[in-house]
Amino acid sequence: MNQLAQLQTYYQAYAKQHTFNNEPKGLYEPVDYILSIGGKQLRPLMLLMTCKLFSDDLKKALPAAYAIEIFHNFTLVHDDIMDAAPLRRGKTTVHHKWNTNTGILSGDVMLVYAYEYLRKVESSLLSDVLSIFNTVAIGVCEGQQYDVDFETMKTVTIPQYIKMIELKTSVLVAGAMQIGALIGGANKEDAHHLGEFGRNIGIAFQLQDDLLDTYGDPEKFGKKVGGDIIQNKKTFLVLKSLELADEKTANILNKLLSTQPEDEAQKIKDVTAIFDSFDIRTHANIKKEAYRDLAYEHLKAVQLPESAKQSLYDFAQFLVQRDV
Amino acid sequence: MNQLAQLQTYYQAYAKQHTFNNEPKGLYEPVDYILSIGGKQLRPLMLLMTCKLFSDDLKKALPAAYAIEIFHNFTLVHDDIMDAAPLRRGKTTVHHKWNTNTGILSGDVMLVYAYEYLRKVESSLLSDVLSIFNTVAIGVCEGQQYDVDFETMKTVTIPQYIKMIELKTSVLVAGAMQIGALIGGANKEDAHHLGEFGRNIGIAFQLQDDLLDTYGDPEKFGKKVGGDIIQNKKTFLVLKSLELADEKTANILNKLLSTQPEDEAQKIKDVTAIFDSFDIRTHANIKKEAYRDLAYEHLKAVQLPESAKQSLYDFAQFLVQRDV
Repeated sequence: MNQLAQLQTYYQAYAKQHTFNNEPKGLYEPVDYILSIGGKQLRPLMLLMTCKLFSDDLKKALPAAYAIEIFHNFTLVHDDIMDAAPLRRGKTTVHHKWNTNTGILSGDVMLVYAYEYLRKVESSLLSDVLSIFNTVAIGVCEGQQYDVDFETMKTVTIPQYIKMIELKTSVLVAGAMQIGALIGGANKEDAHHLGEFGRNIGIAFQLQDDLLDTYGDPEKFGKKVGGDIIQNKKTFLVLKSLELADEKTANILNKLLSTQPEDEAQKIKDVTAIFDSFDIRTHANIKKEAYRDLAYEHLKAVQLPESAKQSLYDFAQFLVQRDV
Repeated sequence: MNQLAQLQTYYQAYAKQHTFNNEPKGLYEPVDYILSIGGKQLRPLMLLMTCKLFSDDLKKALPAAYAIEIFHNFTLVHDDIMDAAPLRRGKTTVHHKWNTNTGILSGDVMLVYAYEYLRKVESSLLSDVLSIFNTVAIGVCEGQQYDVDFETMKTVTIPQYIKMIELKTSVLVAGAMQIGALIGGANKEDAHHLGEFGRNIGIAFQLQDDLLDTYGDPEKFGKKVGGDIIQNKKTFLVLKSLELADEKTANILNKLLSTQPEDEAQKIKDVTAIFDSFDIRTHANIKKEAYRDLAYEHLKAVQLPESAKQSLYDFAQFLVQRDV
């Protein structure tokens, strides 16, 4: 992971030079705040990694990498308002630290700045890059809407759920990798395969997120462990349990996930016990690895020597096994 | 205004063909709703008018015109949340008809679609058009933040206020006209002057809005007359009154505009009486006409026969005298 650490240092130096130390403070301080409280910065790194497959000139990819990270953080700020989430990366969310209106407006200006950084790509690529990015951004909004819709739907199927997380999470990973490849000089076919690699690894990544939300180490995870259970989210763990459960157990699980009891710890314990009874971790891991393998197939199709792609294979494996 | 009516018909036919009749409904129905409840569609018409100065091929300007209108409506949806406004154009606002989360998310996807329509400009213009648009969009967010900041500031000067309305309103009018001119084939200097024409006419337009908010005909105005007074907004009418008032009257006005009484009608009456005592309508009209004249100077500088510009002179005059 030495290459990754190098890329991160390189990216962070750029981000540090492009903070939002502007007026009016009420608009821009929250932007610097959300960008500064860490996060894994995976998406810009993915963009740089795919660029690096085709070119050693990474400088030209930095603005787009930053655009992707700004966009991702914009979605976090607005999603946290919609989810009424108090914590993000173990820190107070923007709308809790300031207020909802600030969260809305600072989020909006971040979305615009994402486009402003994206605009800095070579002009011959601009239309294609914008098109990919717009498709991503529209997908992310649609995914968030499906996520909201699922809350009040009685039945959600696993394919519907996968589609939702694909839109909400994976299309951005896919877009980052496709754009990075294009900036590096890849032909459209290779860029497409790297996008599909990102899409599938993104789904695996999100399934790992579902696992971590229940089974993660609270010290490392940053978010509240059991948060999905408290919020009655229909995650893969829930949907697969419902698929495997007899009517009685399904009813118990559905009932648990329709309440908001005072004793949150007990609810988390009860729901987790049902997950465990179906060995749901194994099921989630099998699903996750299936998407990782699909991702590998697309990576294999990229017209480069396998040795050049090793860092991406490693990175994918890291993503689906991560504990943070 | 025959040309204007023609342009409007032409624009509306395009907009009608590009509604948001997509899935998920929860995301896109509010978009169609806000775009369908009328509005004056001034900004896309301005874009088409400046394009028409240089080219008879207006078709190529339609996507950008629509982008400007979508963007404008995105700002309305988010601003209405921030202002907790129940009505827009005499109809229920999006976040009242649905909810705040819907307003946030549907607004977000509108901003993305604005970029998607903007992307359809000729590729040789794309980078310049995007740059203008980003500057506009950032300005609009900053203007909204200043507007929020002013609520809690003890003193706001008239220049600060003008700067705020310039950002919140005029930069979009300026951008629409500049982009329209570029699409029509104008050189950068002419496009710049048309942008400045728009910027100044936009300020005059907003001053007229301040006037209408207090002195408009409630049947025509669409918004609640006296809304600014109820919300204790520091409009030009307030700031100019404070400038002209003796200490005693200033204290009365400040006190009136720091309360939220049950009897809103009485508050509107009391504040309006103070405005009237300074003949504030005349002052606002003088200021408004000064900006209109500045706008005319920029229009004069455009390297086209004066006769070709007549429709823009007429339109500007219409905007600053409008009663709706």
